[in-house]
Amino acid sequence: MRYLTAGESHGPQQTTIVEGVPANMELLEEDINKELRRRQGGYGRGRRMQIEKDKVQFLSGVRHGKTTGAPITMVVENNDFKSWEQIMGSEPLTEEEEKNVKRKISRPRPGHADLNGAIKYNHRDMRNVLERSSARETTARVCAGALAKKVLQTFGIDVGGQVLEIGGIEAEDIEYKDIYDLKERTESSPVRCLDKSAEEKMMQAIDDAKQKGDSIGGVVQTVITGVPVGMGSHVQYDRKLDSKIAGAVMSINAFKGVEVGIGFDAASIPGSQVHDEIAWDQDQGYYRKSNNLGGFEGGMTTGMPLVIQGVMKPIPTLYKPLQSVDIESKEPFNASIERSDSCAVPAASVVMENVIAFEVAQGLLDMFGSDRVDAIQQNITEHFKWAREF
Amino acid sequence: MRYLTAGESHGPQQTTIVEGVPANMELLEEDINKELRRRQGGYGRGRRMQIEKDKVQFLSGVRHGKTTGAPITMVVENNDFKSWEQIMGSEPLTEEEEKNVKRKISRPRPGHADLNGAIKYNHRDMRNVLERSSARETTARVCAGALAKKVLQTFGIDVGGQVLEIGGIEAEDIEYKDIYDLKERTESSPVRCLDKSAEEKMMQAIDDAKQKGDSIGGVVQTVITGVPVGMGSHVQYDRKLDSKIAGAVMSINAFKGVEVGIGFDAASIPGSQVHDEIAWDQDQGYYRKSNNLGGFEGGMTTGMPLVIQGVMKPIPTLYKPLQSVDIESKEPFNASIERSDSCAVPAASVVMENVIAFEVAQGLLDMFGSDRVDAIQQNITEHFKWAREF
Amino acid sequence: MRYLTAGESHGPQQTTIVEGVPANMELLEEDINKELRRRQGGYGRGRRMQIEKDKVQFLSGVRHGKTTGAPITMVVENNDFKSWEQIMGSEPLTEEEEKNVKRKISRPRPGHADLNGAIKYNHRDMRNVLERSSARETTARVCAGALAKKVLQTFGIDVGGQVLEIGGIEAEDIEYKDIYDLKERTESSPVRCLDKSAEEKMMQAIDDAKQKGDSIGGVVQTVITGVPVGMGSHVQYDRKLDSKIAGAVMSINAFKGVEVGIGFDAASIPGSQVHDEIAWDQDQGYYRKSNNLGGFEGGMTTGMPLVIQGVMKPIPTLYKPLQSVDIESKEPFNASIERSDSCAVPAASVVMENVIAFEVAQGLLDMFGSDRVDAIQQNITEHFKWAREF
Amino acid sequence: MRYLTAGESHGPQQTTIVEGVPANMELLEEDINKELRRRQGGYGRGRRMQIEKDKVQFLSGVRHGKTTGAPITMVVENNDFKSWEQIMGSEPLTEEEEKNVKRKISRPRPGHADLNGAIKYNHRDMRNVLERSSARETTARVCAGALAKKVLQTFGIDVGGQVLEIGGIEAEDIEYKDIYDLKERTESSPVRCLDKSAEEKMMQAIDDAKQKGDSIGGVVQTVITGVPVGMGSHVQYDRKLDSKIAGAVMSINAFKGVEVGIGFDAASIPGSQVHDEIAWDQDQGYYRKSNNLGGFEGGMTTGMPLVIQGVMKPIPTLYKPLQSVDIESKEPFNASIERSDSCAVPAASVVMENVIAFEVAQGLLDMFGSDRVDAIQQNITEHFKWAREF
Repeated sequence: MRYLTAGESHGPQQTTIVEGVPANMELLEEDINKELRRRQGGYGRGRRMQIEKDKVQFLSGVRHGKTTGAPITMVVENNDFKSWEQIMGSEPLTEEEEKNVKRKISRPRPGHADLNGAIKYNHRDMRNVLERSSARETTARVCAGALAKKVLQTFGIDVGGQVLEIGGIEAEDIEYKDIYDLKERTESSPVRCLDKSAEEKMMQAIDDAKQKGDSIGGVVQTVITGVPVGMGSHVQYDRKLDSKIAGAVMSINAFKGVEVGIGFDAASIPGSQVHDEIAWDQDQGYYRKSNNLGGFEGGMTTGMPLVIQGVMKPIPTLYKPLQSVDIESKEPFNASIERSDSCAVPAASVVMENVIAFEVAQGLLDMFGSDRVDAIQQNITEHFKWAREF
Repeated sequence: MRYLTAGESHGPQQTTIVEGVPANMELLEEDINKELRRRQGGYGRGRRMQIEKDKVQFLSGVRHGKTTGAPITMVVENNDFKSWEQIMGSEPLTEEEEKNVKRKISRPRPGHADLNGAIKYNHRDMRNVLERSSARETTARVCAGALAKKVLQTFGIDVGGQVLEIGGIEAEDIEYKDIYDLKERTESSPVRCLDKSAEEKMMQAIDDAKQKGDSIGGVVQTVITGVPVGMGSHVQYDRKLDSKIAGAVMSINAFKGVEVGIGFDAASIPGSQVHDEIAWDQDQGYYRKSNNLGGFEGGMTTGMPLVIQGVMKPIPTLYKPLQSVDIESKEPFNASIERSDSCAVPAASVVMENVIAFEVAQGLLDMFGSDRVDAIQQNITEHFKWAREF
Repeated sequence: MRYLTAGESHGPQQTTIVEGVPANMELLEEDINKELRRRQGGYGRGRRMQIEKDKVQFLSGVRHGKTTGAPITMVVENNDFKSWEQIMGSEPLTEEEEKNVKRKISRPRPGHADLNGAIKYNHRDMRNVLERSSARETTARVCAGALAKKVLQTFGIDVGGQVLEIGGIEAEDIEYKDIYDLKERTESSPVRCLDKSAEEKMMQAIDDAKQKGDSIGGVVQTVITGVPVGMGSHVQYDRKLDSKIAGAVMSINAFKGVEVGIGFDAASIPGSQVHDEIAWDQDQGYYRKSNNLGGFEGGMTTGMPLVIQGVMKPIPTLYKPLQSVDIESKEPFNASIERSDSCAVPAASVVMENVIAFEVAQGLLDMFGSDRVDAIQQNITEHFKWAREF
Repeated sequence: MRYLTAGESHGPQQTTIVEGVPANMELLEEDINKELRRRQGGYGRGRRMQIEKDKVQFLSGVRHGKTTGAPITMVVENNDFKSWEQIMGSEPLTEEEEKNVKRKISRPRPGHADLNGAIKYNHRDMRNVLERSSARETTARVCAGALAKKVLQTFGIDVGGQVLEIGGIEAEDIEYKDIYDLKERTESSPVRCLDKSAEEKMMQAIDDAKQKGDSIGGVVQTVITGVPVGMGSHVQYDRKLDSKIAGAVMSINAFKGVEVGIGFDAASIPGSQVHDEIAWDQDQGYYRKSNNLGGFEGGMTTGMPLVIQGVMKPIPTLYKPLQSVDIESKEPFNASIERSDSCAVPAASVVMENVIAFEVAQGLLDMFGSDRVDAIQQNITEHFKWAREF
């Protein structure tokens, strides 16, 4: 599987083409819409999330509720495009129109791609950068990821997640029974947090930030269960699955860090307490007594749940402005506001689940084939047996 | 530029082929050996580092001290291969020999690739896994990275780094004048640490761990200066340079996390204090008043120094053993010791510099061409002028 | 530049995403539509070509007549989708609907992907294969190629072509003044042939084939002028530009061969008459006295025009049926007819120009950068000067 | 599987790293040496073939006669390097040495990469180009290909080939019983030709060319039997296996064309005689009554033998010189002679078998997994059953 996304924040649509999806997999638009809704939820989102009720359309690769093996085109329309048609149109403007088109942007916002992108691509109107660098693009990535989640689910692999920290408020380490329990409980939390007491404080922190015209970031965690042993490979640096996941997470807008298992805590815990001891019994075969390494050894899955954390910085678009420089006048100014979420961490948690799901699904299909669901299923079943009896 | 590495820990050699290196770049074996020596140093290394004095040989792509544009083959011999010839030979064994070959490994070590790799590749002798998953492979990656460093240096881009934490001992945030100062001071520290007081405690922690038969990990930082604005791109998720760097860092043996700039601290600092304000003056053009985002916005370089942290877990091979299971008998046992470093963090700092250097050099050549040094230099010079006058 | 295509023959649309297009390039839908029209023309096309008047829409990456550097989404709607909505819909059918959906296909057509694709992807209804394997997909490839042609044209590189043979009728080797002359004259020929006497015979051959319910193939040639020296590279097998072009041509539906310059004639001409002697004069710098090698040496461009031939087999869908086997009954039958062109060679000539244009544009951007048109132009200008003075 | 090659014609060695080879496959150096010997044979080779008796060494990835799944390093030493150490050394020369190094090359040979490569990479000494662009590199590609042949053979897929034309002498279309017969008979022919009468004339043509100081090319064919249905895919242009093979063949030094099945003859045969009718019986399942399309439909294998032809131009290094220009003096000269084969077509036939084998093996492992031989074998066995019963 591979994919490309395309689309501007105020253009007509977000488009995703996913290539390499196994044939004969059941797939409904609702499988995607479910994740799109999750992405649009969460405490702290601004006005735009109300405008957009994202819905996907399949325009290729799916027929009568099943994949055909052909590339899948997924489109999510931008509902407010009608108000932007002239500003964002693909056809040249007449001189008259040119004069009327406002919103030319010569003022780069700190923390955004605006200035770097403008210099790289030679855009005096930085709208040509920000329309693409906008987090709106994560809609298209969620489309790809939701499809990948469906692939995983088809083969018994489940993806969930939780918010661990928002604006300095850390959640306690709350136990959950299994991934279904985790999913159910985070789904009902406005900040996707298991810890009810932290949840309240997080919401308060979001309100506070909003009131001050400030924004806050946070730490989110993705958990994947049911994974077979041995996805990824130790034999070449670029085949390690944890490496691919790290790359994918860091590519999400506003993410500044990623860790697997205990992650940065590994700097302070001695080796004797870090590594997960290996055990065996008749029923399960090999298993680990702990999961400090987050389901990876040597860049390969161990069969334990994958546990990955990512950190999202505070959204850079603030009511409380930052200093910048107008590229035309070279005069300083206070950076303008395009959007107004004060915290997008719960949504980022959903995005992270989805981008990781894509990497894991890719690892799965690399290992077990990618042509038809029935053969893949058989390969996976036999592999579980093989690993148990090894 | 792209590369493949090959080689086993006790095989005849580590081999690296790097493809896509610009022609007419000055390159000496000493450019590589310098980094190989740095990799082999550091307080806390065991016996093997004394055995191996790694030296590279160029076997293609370099002629009379200059690159030709052809692929460069770099070989580092494993000095102790002579003692391993029968165990590691490529030819089939006679029945007689088979009996004599000891060191068949049926006991997977927790924290290593042993068990996952054995199941994936069907190896009852896990030596077939561990010989390749060994951190000895980082020798080959340092070869590729040292070459990339030379590319960067040729165009005025410098790479340094420091150790920030070992075994829970955190260094103070020590100022340095510039990257040359950073490099000089860390080079003279046995643990590559700027903070002299932390340095002492780190060495003590290493001694303590060694004495207890335990091991410790740490946090290392890479810094790269002189980078042009606009490497990487925001236009597609897989072209973001910070994403590629994150993938590369996570692929280093034993690394469990990576962050850019303030990284995970972004979860607790409000947006108004996170984003780097933009300024401009006649001489420098645009610049940032701070560098919290570690030199990246929108997956592109801002022109500020790149600042990346990675965390290395404690080395999993311990005198203090961990429980595991023999794959033949299915009996539990205490995991065996193959090597004996108690801390490899200073060396890991060197490895991380090198793997990041490769990604950055790749970003550079993608942007400015990769055929001949003179044309690339001209493109870079013009780009700096362009960015200044934009 | 890279691209993915998606879409079924009777689905709602053909979608192409092209990634890596330089910013600030002028681009109109007409640049694409022009090639789409050329693809739909040509003597010998059947009914469907009349139905479809393909028109592209840009749905991302182009703003006010210029590229932004962001991925470009191009959509060509299938006008007859409305008659196929139930048959090709993505939603599951009710039991009732299922009964009504006709056109389930259990009869594989020789010469098509039907049977192989059905076995690979487990489709009992081979519509799930043929909808994607249809040459309708070349619409999407022409979109990508037309974009690439525009890139080339922006930098002074021109693409033309001609039909050399249809159904055994070979054109004489007719001289043309330059590529503009070639383009103009082939454009006005119903079979895209320079040789007026062959043209007539080719049209007759097409009529004859049609009358017999048979089909015929042919040989087409693409010519590209204005190329800089040194695109592609000899240093690694997969970087040779002629190799990439060969792969691209062979991937066009129904193509069975590809050759560069004198191609297969090289088997019978002695070396002393094959290789293109090198000359030099003050004005042009180095040039070749002939172009037998079709513009390539060592996988790199020589600066001479690129000359590539491809062969298209006769369209496999015939009124005159071929024997095949029903996959349900295992009974033999005479293969069904889905479409009715008797010769698509002139159109194939257009498709080949476009897929080659993409590879060449990619080679160009690899060599000279791909961010912004102004910098690329400067690099190319300097390279021509460099080559002339070398 | 993927690979990189490295090495210069007169450098110390040819190096190949192949990555992604399944574990637990039996592999001996003799498996590679066998193909290296075949490559060095053939009527019409010059002096150098006598010097070099190529032998491979495995330096990683193979242990006790079996693959481990780790990357395989294959080295073939250049036996005459000792005479070239100063000319080809990687260390800088002293001024004294510089003076003594002869053989600086300022005279580009027509038909070689010399001039294009020199301009691209800025080499005034074109030795820096020709050492890499030399057909000596095909040694490394044969190493990769021989490994791939072993993969194929492990799973019952056989590769053979024949020479169809040399210097205008075409072989009759001679029948052979099966691929073993084909291999045996071509192996015993000095020009790898089935047709004994053509064989004699080809040898005569080679002698004639040699005497005149000229060179001749030819057409070679590769045949692969035992392939499963459905390798490659129709769903995306770059996944078609015939396309990949075409790219691979065209990347062989001196190849100017490639075709599948009847290839260019498809331009003159009507569709009703081109397409391979489909039949079925209880024992074999589906089969084709002919194989005009050379084993491919829709970019996928049909299960029939793969049949591919390639054309090699005459070797451009001639005793009978061609005009060229000295890049220093800009004076015309008669191009110098570096080597002296008058015909390398029989060897090219071996090279083509091997590069195609690599693409087919890659297609196989993409489809059936690439981790361990036992699981791949089971998948293939089941697929044959599946296809038969489909």
